[in-house]
Amino acid sequence: MEFSEWYSEILERAEIYDVRYPIKGCGVYLPYGFKIRKYTFEILSKLLDESGHEQVLFPLLIPETLLAKEGEHIKGFEDEVYWVTHGGKTPLDVKLALRPTSETAIYYMLKLWVKVHTDLPIKLYQIVNTFRYETKHTRPLIRLREIMTFKEAHTAHATKEEAEKQVKEAIGIYKKFFDTLGIPYLIIKRPEWDKFPGADYTIAFDTIFPDGRAIQIGTVHNLGQHFSKTFEIEFETPTGDKDYAYQTCYGISDRAIASIIAIHGDEKGLKLPPVVAPIQVVIIPLIFKGKEEMVINKAKEVAERLKEYRVHIDDRDIRPGKKYYDWEIKGVPLRIDIGPRDIEEGKITLVRRDTGEKIVIEESELEEKVRETLEDISKRLKESAKERFKKFITICDVEEAKEMLEKKRGIILVPYDNSIYKEELEEKVDAKVLGETEYEGKKYIAIAKTY
Amino acid sequence: MEFSEWYSEILERAEIYDVRYPIKGCGVYLPYGFKIRKYTFEILSKLLDESGHEQVLFPLLIPETLLAKEGEHIKGFEDEVYWVTHGGKTPLDVKLALRPTSETAIYYMLKLWVKVHTDLPIKLYQIVNTFRYETKHTRPLIRLREIMTFKEAHTAHATKEEAEKQVKEAIGIYKKFFDTLGIPYLIIKRPEWDKFPGADYTIAFDTIFPDGRAIQIGTVHNLGQHFSKTFEIEFETPTGDKDYAYQTCYGISDRAIASIIAIHGDEKGLKLPPVVAPIQVVIIPLIFKGKEEMVINKAKEVAERLKEYRVHIDDRDIRPGKKYYDWEIKGVPLRIDIGPRDIEEGKITLVRRDTGEKIVIEESELEEKVRETLEDISKRLKESAKERFKKFITICDVEEAKEMLEKKRGIILVPYDNSIYKEELEEKVDAKVLGETEYEGKKYIAIAKTY
Repeated sequence: MEFSEWYSEILERAEIYDVRYPIKGCGVYLPYGFKIRKYTFEILSKLLDESGHEQVLFPLLIPETLLAKEGEHIKGFEDEVYWVTHGGKTPLDVKLALRPTSETAIYYMLKLWVKVHTDLPIKLYQIVNTFRYETKHTRPLIRLREIMTFKEAHTAHATKEEAEKQVKEAIGIYKKFFDTLGIPYLIIKRPEWDKFPGADYTIAFDTIFPDGRAIQIGTVHNLGQHFSKTFEIEFETPTGDKDYAYQTCYGISDRAIASIIAIHGDEKGLKLPPVVAPIQVVIIPLIFKGKEEMVINKAKEVAERLKEYRVHIDDRDIRPGKKYYDWEIKGVPLRIDIGPRDIEEGKITLVRRDTGEKIVIEESELEEKVRETLEDISKRLKESAKERFKKFITICDVEEAKEMLEKKRGIILVPYDNSIYKEELEEKVDAKVLGETEYEGKKYIAIAKTY
Repeated sequence: MEFSEWYSEILERAEIYDVRYPIKGCGVYLPYGFKIRKYTFEILSKLLDESGHEQVLFPLLIPETLLAKEGEHIKGFEDEVYWVTHGGKTPLDVKLALRPTSETAIYYMLKLWVKVHTDLPIKLYQIVNTFRYETKHTRPLIRLREIMTFKEAHTAHATKEEAEKQVKEAIGIYKKFFDTLGIPYLIIKRPEWDKFPGADYTIAFDTIFPDGRAIQIGTVHNLGQHFSKTFEIEFETPTGDKDYAYQTCYGISDRAIASIIAIHGDEKGLKLPPVVAPIQVVIIPLIFKGKEEMVINKAKEVAERLKEYRVHIDDRDIRPGKKYYDWEIKGVPLRIDIGPRDIEEGKITLVRRDTGEKIVIEESELEEKVRETLEDISKRLKESAKERFKKFITICDVEEAKEMLEKKRGIILVPYDNSIYKEELEEKVDAKVLGETEYEGKKYIAIAKTY
């Protein structure tokens, strides 16, 4: 089955996201999908909280006057901003944009908060919906008109060096985040012509989907003083001089969820890393006449012993095969079958979603084996994803790039050469130049067909 | 100081919400305010999750055609809906509303999800931003144009009785929620002329702010089949007939946060119930020359022993008085002063924010006394709030109502009489008729000046 077809089907069958909402590019996070989203972004929040970021919440609406203040920034967004023009039947004096991203909203307030170098650094983030009037083909959780989940962090610093250091910290946080999810990536510095509108430079995380197309799943921008000069975020330095704040911002969206689905899933459905699985262990009581009570009681006992996990007993009155099928689609990492024979022999049967492997253990080993197995599932999911990712990386000369890209898809790395690193290269290879990257210690230009 | 002035000042000084955003009725949740919001709505989420509600996320945008489908509903909202009319420079074919509330968005999808009685009940909720183009005076967290936090639950049932039962469950959940926050309330059935647009009836939770004005802080609506008929949420009954779903919805907004602030606070600042306090215990090391290390180490030791709480050591290099002052503004329930004399005597000094009381305890009793004191603070905050609330309730005849309201403010209860329970009554008493309510076993008409 073709990837995009598989992907649409899995969103529906695993009950993640319903695309039937009557606006193009807008859909509904269903309960199961919402939980995956919740656990995923909790990981990110935790990483940000632990590194001294503070969560805030800014308004959705941005006055046109504010959004248009930074020239390059508005140029980058003006074709895709949704505009609110009326309140009730009253035309508004100033049009209001639905935030495509919140630099301008946040930096207006930063001017009010930053007076002196001791007010810095400021490290904020919010998790909000943002909007882009996409004219390209929309795709659920990949290219949305309402991006339902955008974690955007914004920082301000007293020196250029601190901003540089912050970029590194942000990259470190995103590495940990994607590593935790088992999502492989390349870290690529975007070319000058493709950086964030208003940034000094942009560092991106790119992964590769099973169809061989690259997809940007996170970005970190060093904004220098572009915005702080425009928004007058000025402070008194320790020597009594005035300077403008040095800023960074970095974001991760619903594409993190799309990646978990796309990168780990297989023909049977999702394969969720335990850390984000709404159900980590599903228990299936195998009911035989006359032994119902014994089986149900054992299922409850096992659930109780595993209560540190997210456990679900599937006691629906349908045949076990149908249950297996349902939970495979939903990607539950570990299944436990409880049947009379196992009970009589003091055994428990574990079934791994990732490998399909059956493991029969002694009842007494339950907690230990479940812990080990879940850990191993996380590890194996990450390793397999990495293996597939590596197969999609091809190193070749620029002359072969176009052909190799057609043949092998994925990301093509051509040895870095300043004389070819130009926007024209995109035409030559008929693909996107992702930027410059290090791979196994060498410097390359990365090229790919992208989402 | 007048309440509204106190309220504005406390939002700013306790760093809860910054009103200086350049759109009327839109502001910024600051880190401290965001945390209060987070803990508050986590309580509500937990209550909803435990009672079988599932969290989802629907789009912000609602096509005009959908919003206008239910006649009464759109009539109730048409003057205050924000309209998106353009994507980039392109006029949209169909105007898009920023959700004022999500009935129409959700019920469009329910039609797709509900086919047969076994698909019911469905109990969903989401926590989102909603929008009202308020022409009245806006007030931070009380009357916003961007309501930053709206928990809206939506349920669908197979029978009228189940919907009735759901209304009761919702009321029970909201009672627990406000009880946990120590916020007193009356539960009042709104009059026919003031129910939710499209509902059979509306039950509201009203509290009273220190200025004596009543404020609606939660509502529960029985929608009957109004929306299900319009949106064709039809299902096959157990007998093979067709019926339309019976629906309810219920909501709580940022006003929950406003209530925590307004109802518990005093002239010194916030008084936060421990359950929602971002910092539950603040430790102030009292530094004396030559004894710095001893004090700091003891502060750390105490923090470690209290790690099940949200504890903060304030080691700023400023005088203790300034620290006391700061944490009083921020409403931290319990302060612990650590000084050399206490340490030498094996004592610890606790200071309650609610009563100002100092409690000197033995070091060995720390965990026990802190637990007891925090529990007592929760209890006392609730009791004091209730006492003040009761003083604001006046029972009198309808003829005295207007005068009593002017004199005593708060909520006036006049004995229920069908012949006076009409919209005209509002003119007569020059106030809002909140509806009918039971108070100490008797039935009344509740009247108040409102927010």
